[in-house]
Amino acid sequence: MAGRLGILAGSGNLPAQVAESCRRDGRDLFIIALEGQAVASELPEGVPTAWYRMGAAGAILDRLKAEGVRDIVMAGRVRRPSLAELRPDWRAAQVLARASARALGDDGLLGAVSKVLEQEGFHVVGADELAGDLLTPVGVLTRALPDEQAEADIARGIAAARDLGRLDIGQAVVVQQGIVLGVEAIEGTDALISRCAGLKRSGAGPVLVKVRKPQQDRRFDLPAIGPDTVTACAAAGFAGIAAEAGGTLFLGRESALTAADAAGLFVAGVNCPIPEAE
Amino acid sequence: MAGRLGILAGSGNLPAQVAESCRRDGRDLFIIALEGQAVASELPEGVPTAWYRMGAAGAILDRLKAEGVRDIVMAGRVRRPSLAELRPDWRAAQVLARASARALGDDGLLGAVSKVLEQEGFHVVGADELAGDLLTPVGVLTRALPDEQAEADIARGIAAARDLGRLDIGQAVVVQQGIVLGVEAIEGTDALISRCAGLKRSGAGPVLVKVRKPQQDRRFDLPAIGPDTVTACAAAGFAGIAAEAGGTLFLGRESALTAADAAGLFVAGVNCPIPEAE
Repeated sequence: MAGRLGILAGSGNLPAQVAESCRRDGRDLFIIALEGQAVASELPEGVPTAWYRMGAAGAILDRLKAEGVRDIVMAGRVRRPSLAELRPDWRAAQVLARASARALGDDGLLGAVSKVLEQEGFHVVGADELAGDLLTPVGVLTRALPDEQAEADIARGIAAARDLGRLDIGQAVVVQQGIVLGVEAIEGTDALISRCAGLKRSGAGPVLVKVRKPQQDRRFDLPAIGPDTVTACAAAGFAGIAAEAGGTLFLGRESALTAADAAGLFVAGVNCPIPEAE
Repeated sequence: MAGRLGILAGSGNLPAQVAESCRRDGRDLFIIALEGQAVASELPEGVPTAWYRMGAAGAILDRLKAEGVRDIVMAGRVRRPSLAELRPDWRAAQVLARASARALGDDGLLGAVSKVLEQEGFHVVGADELAGDLLTPVGVLTRALPDEQAEADIARGIAAARDLGRLDIGQAVVVQQGIVLGVEAIEGTDALISRCAGLKRSGAGPVLVKVRKPQQDRRFDLPAIGPDTVTACAAAGFAGIAAEAGGTLFLGRESALTAADAAGLFVAGVNCPIPEAE
C-alpha cells in the first residue's frame, strides 16, 4: 500500500532498525546517508543507499524525487555542523534562513528541514509510526526496581529535563540523592553519563532520566536509549535509567535489557504528562 | 564599630579577598576553614584560623561563640559532601533535616545552615556587603567588545541560565552561534568551559554566561568569575564572558582583565532583570 520510503540517515542504529521493520512489512526503501553523520557499518545491507553532504539539499531533493520516494523518515543522530562545514547550496540556505528565527536549536533546524520536504510534496513520518515497537513501554522492564530514593530522583529529573527541553537545550539529566549531577546540552547522553561517573557521591547511585521536549514534533529527534546507554550507565555506577514511556525510543531493547539485568541496573518507562501550556 | 567577623571558608580566593578588604577597614577576623574544602595556601596569613570538618556543626558553633564572633560570612566554594563523608554531629543532622525538604539543592543546604546560624544569634552577611568592589559592574570591561552574534548568544544564555538557576541546578551556560553548547550542574564552571572546548563549532567563538538564581539569597553562593575563568575561556577559544552586573562576584579583577585583554577576550557585566514571579 505505502509507496517507497526514504530514510534520511544519521548515526546510531535507528536507521537500520527502521529499515528492518519496514522490510519485514515488504516496503521498498531508499537511504540518503548524510556524510559526516551516518556510519556505513551501521546502515542495513541490501538497501539502495546514496551518500550526500548535508549542505547539498537541492541534490538530495532531486534524488529523492528521481527514486520515487513519497514518505520520508529522519532517523539517527545528526551532529549540528557549523555553517563553514555545511557549505549550503541555495535550498539548504533557504532552510537555514527559515530556521534562524529559532536560533538553530534542534527544533528550529529539523522543523525547517521538514517544512521544506513537505513543500516539495513529501510526507514526513515518525520512526515510531513505522516501527511501533520502538517506543519505550510503561513500567519497569528489568529485574532490578527503582527504590524510594530512585523514585524521588526520577521525579526531580523529569521536572528538570522537561524545562531543559522547553528551552530546546537537551533531553537528559542525571540525578543522585536529590542533586542534579549533570545536564545534557550538545555533548550527547554518553558524554553526560561518563562525566557524571566522576561527579557522583557515595551511597545510592545516580539515575539517568530522559524525556522528550514538551514542544517536540514526534516525527523527528525523539530521544532514544539503547544498549550503549545501559553499558555506559553500568560502567559509571548508576542505579538505573528512566525514559519517558511513549515519548522515547528504546533501541536494541532485548540486548539492552539483558545487559541491564546482568549489571543489576533498572530500566523503567515512566509516564510524564506534559503540563498544559501556560 | 562592627564586632568580630567570622569567615566560614571554602576554596578559591574569595575568603582571602573578603579578609583583605575587612582588614583594610581595621576589622577583627576569625576564620573557620572547612576541612576538605578550604585550601591552606589560599587563606590569608596572619588571621587566626581553625580547621573543622563540615559535619562538626556543634563544635563550630561553640568555637565561633568562644571567639566572640557576631557577624558571619560564608565565602568560597563548597563541594557538597556525601552523607558518609559528612559524618554529621547532631547539630549538623538538624541542618540536614531542615534542608532535606529542598532535596539538598544548593539553596536548601546553605539556607538551612544560615537559618541555624541566625537561630544561634549570629548575623549572616554577604561577601558583597563587606567588600562592595567585588560585584561585577555594568558594561564592557575589556578592550574587546561583544559583536552582534555575541550579543545574541548572551541573550540566549541569560534566559537559559536563569531557568537553570530557578531549578537550583547551576548558574552558568555556554552559548555559541545560538546553540547552547553546555550547561553547568555540579561539575563547576571550569569543567564546563573545558568540555565546551571540544564541542565548539568553527566561526565566532562561544560565550560563557553566568547569572545568579532568581531566588538567590545574596548572602551566600553568589556566582563568581575571576582570573581562572578568563584563562580557561581563553584556552578554550571563547569569544568572551558575560556575568550579571551586581549579581555576580568578579574576583581578582585587575589580573583577570589584564589576561582578558592579552587574549583578546571580552568581559562584560550585563543587566538581567529578574522577571516578576508568576
